Amino acid sequence: MTPSVRVDPIVGRRVIVAPERGRRPLLVAGEPLRDDPNACPFCEGREDRTPPESLAVRPSGSPPNGPGWLVRSVPNRFPAVRTDAAGPTLPDQFPATGPHEVIVECPNHAVSLTELSVGQVGHVFRLWRERLRQLRDAGGVVYAQLFKNHGAAAGASVPHAHSQLIGLPAVPALVAEELAACGNGECPFCRLLDGERRVGERWVTATDRIAAFTAYAGRFPYETWLLPRRHAARYEDADDRTVEELAGLLHTLLRRLEMREVGAAYNLVLHTSPFTVGESLYHWHLELLPRLTGVAGFEWATGWFINPLPPEEAATRLRG
Amino acid sequence: MTPSVRVDPIVGRRVIVAPERGRRPLLVAGEPLRDDPNACPFCEGREDRTPPESLAVRPSGSPPNGPGWLVRSVPNRFPAVRTDAAGPTLPDQFPATGPHEVIVECPNHAVSLTELSVGQVGHVFRLWRERLRQLRDAGGVVYAQLFKNHGAAAGASVPHAHSQLIGLPAVPALVAEELAACGNGECPFCRLLDGERRVGERWVTATDRIAAFTAYAGRFPYETWLLPRRHAARYEDADDRTVEELAGLLHTLLRRLEMREVGAAYNLVLHTSPFTVGESLYHWHLELLPRLTGVAGFEWATGWFINPLPPEEAATRLRG
Repeated sequence: MTPSVRVDPIVGRRVIVAPERGRRPLLVAGEPLRDDPNACPFCEGREDRTPPESLAVRPSGSPPNGPGWLVRSVPNRFPAVRTDAAGPTLPDQFPATGPHEVIVECPNHAVSLTELSVGQVGHVFRLWRERLRQLRDAGGVVYAQLFKNHGAAAGASVPHAHSQLIGLPAVPALVAEELAACGNGECPFCRLLDGERRVGERWVTATDRIAAFTAYAGRFPYETWLLPRRHAARYEDADDRTVEELAGLLHTLLRRLEMREVGAAYNLVLHTSPFTVGESLYHWHLELLPRLTGVAGFEWATGWFINPLPPEEAATRLRG
Repeated sequence: MTPSVRVDPIVGRRVIVAPERGRRPLLVAGEPLRDDPNACPFCEGREDRTPPESLAVRPSGSPPNGPGWLVRSVPNRFPAVRTDAAGPTLPDQFPATGPHEVIVECPNHAVSLTELSVGQVGHVFRLWRERLRQLRDAGGVVYAQLFKNHGAAAGASVPHAHSQLIGLPAVPALVAEELAACGNGECPFCRLLDGERRVGERWVTATDRIAAFTAYAGRFPYETWLLPRRHAARYEDADDRTVEELAGLLHTLLRRLEMREVGAAYNLVLHTSPFTVGESLYHWHLELLPRLTGVAGFEWATGWFINPLPPEEAATRLRG
């Protein structure tokens, strides 16, 4: 059965029904990950345990699918979407067409980005950028979602540091909402940046090109947004220095978070302008979403969230 | 610091910032619950461990806040909202005013609703109804959200069977979306009920008054909706027989779910018409949301969900 996107008959919510993903070893959500470095399919030397790579950083000039890489993107063995998804496009259903890739963030068996050098994290973010450029140029993908699940409570099922890319045939709801908010002549993210810089109580840190502050209405404790300080719609157009500063700033933030909250799980999500949208007021950004509190009935019922840590207090803790 | 509802500056998402909730013993999300029946604050005989009850089912005629009850609603010691929340109402923030109560579902130390008799589950759902009626009549609450977190992976922090009520000063996003879908002359839930009955592949079971089917675009494996078969906007107006049939049908479904998926965590959420909305086309319903898969970066990034179990297959399993 090919994966398809279903449209809820009442509110229009989109759900990818992906039976292949069900073949993945089922974890009871939140169960601690078993970590066996000797059997890790993502470690250097075990490239035969993953499908052939779509892209890799190989400073050694080594051939694909063998050792010598620094970062590597490979198709997900339990995909949520498929490049060859087929089926009719109906009002309530359409094929879930697109790539689903795992970006292995290091050749050695590291679990956290904070175990890597800032330079290595820079390689990861450069591969994200390059893969976006390739997908943009190849056509066929409307939006590519890059994200990272760190820790079982954040939905990770493999300990070795990795992120993921899912290409989609439509603009997803939350990006569409942000795009709609960006349509009125002034970029709301630029305005927000200015305001947060001025007010200061949620400001965490910044470099020349990237700023980080806790979200005013953060859903999660320590929710922090990283944005380019100069307006820019597309992550794939970022220059090297921007990407390096993003890597450095995130590395710093994660070290501080892990010192405050040992073993903190988190998600990272990149929001960037869809490929199909022309020059727009969108402003790309990276959201750091720590997962220290459960998301429970109240949130699924209401669409509202409960955050027990005031963002101003979170900023104070992350600054120190 | 009084709890407040914050409005996200970009997309308008609502988040309750509730510092008192942070005093709750912090669980790493998904960590197994410690279960010590000898220290359980919800067991009969330990009524002094909870704040004074707001409502109880006491067939014995016993006085409040002592033994003799069957179901009991008490203020949450770590509230997300407060009846005395104060503060200005601004465009980006307003007081999180309302009650936050825990409904203790049985006097003995049971963990799952399936350990209770159907009659006892009926007492729970009657107390839900009665508490809604009281809040409606008292005024001041716009919408009351009833929900249940069962199991650590569903956000429960206490094992003893319980549900919760959070009264809100505004209609929450997901209810507002459903209300908007109910404004066009024909109830979309009635239409959906008809369609699902006719098609049959997602139909699970029904009584005279209540039907259960898996959601066409279910976010979670086995996501099942329970609806009154005759149009009805407000749960608090349901008659005794409807409430009893709801209890019986849910009990059956949960037994089947637990046989299929041992130890399954789940959320239950009740959607009913807000108190402030006049006669409307809204159709109350109870959503059963099993939590067998993690919600991860993709979902937080996109607002889309990934469900590895086709709802038709889920219905087949729940019918058997």
